[in-house]
Amino acid sequence: MTICFYLQQGVEVLDFAGPMEVFSAAGFRVITVSRKKGPVTSQGILKIMPDYTIDDAPPFDILAFFGGGTNAATKDTGLIAWIESRRTSTSYFFSVCTGAFILGKAGLLDSLSATTFHSSIEELRTALPRTRVLANVRFVDNGRVMTTAGISAGIDGALHLVTRLKGEEAAKEVAAYMEYDKWVPNQGLVVAER
Amino acid sequence: MTICFYLQQGVEVLDFAGPMEVFSAAGFRVITVSRKKGPVTSQGILKIMPDYTIDDAPPFDILAFFGGGTNAATKDTGLIAWIESRRTSTSYFFSVCTGAFILGKAGLLDSLSATTFHSSIEELRTALPRTRVLANVRFVDNGRVMTTAGISAGIDGALHLVTRLKGEEAAKEVAAYMEYDKWVPNQGLVVAER
Repeated sequence: MTICFYLQQGVEVLDFAGPMEVFSAAGFRVITVSRKKGPVTSQGILKIMPDYTIDDAPPFDILAFFGGGTNAATKDTGLIAWIESRRTSTSYFFSVCTGAFILGKAGLLDSLSATTFHSSIEELRTALPRTRVLANVRFVDNGRVMTTAGISAGIDGALHLVTRLKGEEAAKEVAAYMEYDKWVPNQGLVVAER
Repeated sequence: MTICFYLQQGVEVLDFAGPMEVFSAAGFRVITVSRKKGPVTSQGILKIMPDYTIDDAPPFDILAFFGGGTNAATKDTGLIAWIESRRTSTSYFFSVCTGAFILGKAGLLDSLSATTFHSSIEELRTALPRTRVLANVRFVDNGRVMTTAGISAGIDGALHLVTRLKGEEAAKEVAAYMEYDKWVPNQGLVVAER
């Protein structure tokens, strides 16, 4: 399976790096995609050269969004149109932190439950009146669309998705490899199993 | 305070990204340094453009090393000579995972205690006969030189160093911001307080 990490300007480093470690260790193919050619700067620190832009990205099974710089991303009509164009060909959508605002803007959270960064819960409720926004939950899994709480919660959410797609033993092996001894399986909310 | 993240080819993504999130959120200035100009690929996935090479890196207070690609790094005599040249001007040395092999090669772990990635404990004992290598510990803090266990343990080690340099309240604020609700302060071994 291939997972596409969409990296916008200002993306928060641990938001994407935690899930990248998890999915890579679980044997997924990981690709990075940005809006335009040229470097993306994460958190004002880390300069990244993504593999593809939205104009040349190959197909993928999972599309993932992360926090940091999401205000500008939700206003980017070209990005939102691209997400909509990938809606049918993509099996799963995943967000960490305020990445939920991007999924929501593309209509992917309509009539679903979701969570986001702890300071942004009310803002997400205002932005997405058709979404049930939940606080104090590590992740919310609707089956095809999954959102996690802030930053380090992305690690837990990624391990949950690995559990669903490859089984709990595979996820436990990844957590042990990462020395993520603090992992508690099933710590989030599963709204609807596929 | 400035912390220098040395990023070698093949560096493991969560090894450095966890501490980068922590130190950045704690208000440290973070710079990235590589051996030569041009991109460094993390874990075969993430292409990074470091800020400096070892030939033009400015002074810093903390020098940090991470796992992945460390076998080649320990054989790089130019890198080891550079670390030795920064020994006096650098206040603290920090490693995550097999980054300990680099610190050890530069003589920084002589007569000290250390830890590393769980699968590499025996190998580190063989490589560093003058170092007490400890298993089953999240981090080992010798005062000026600190090593952590594998991958996600870097987050705990970074929070510990923030606790030492800025106080436990500051570290708790960072953990809360990151939603790292699982953080347990003082979970590692402090061998000698400065």
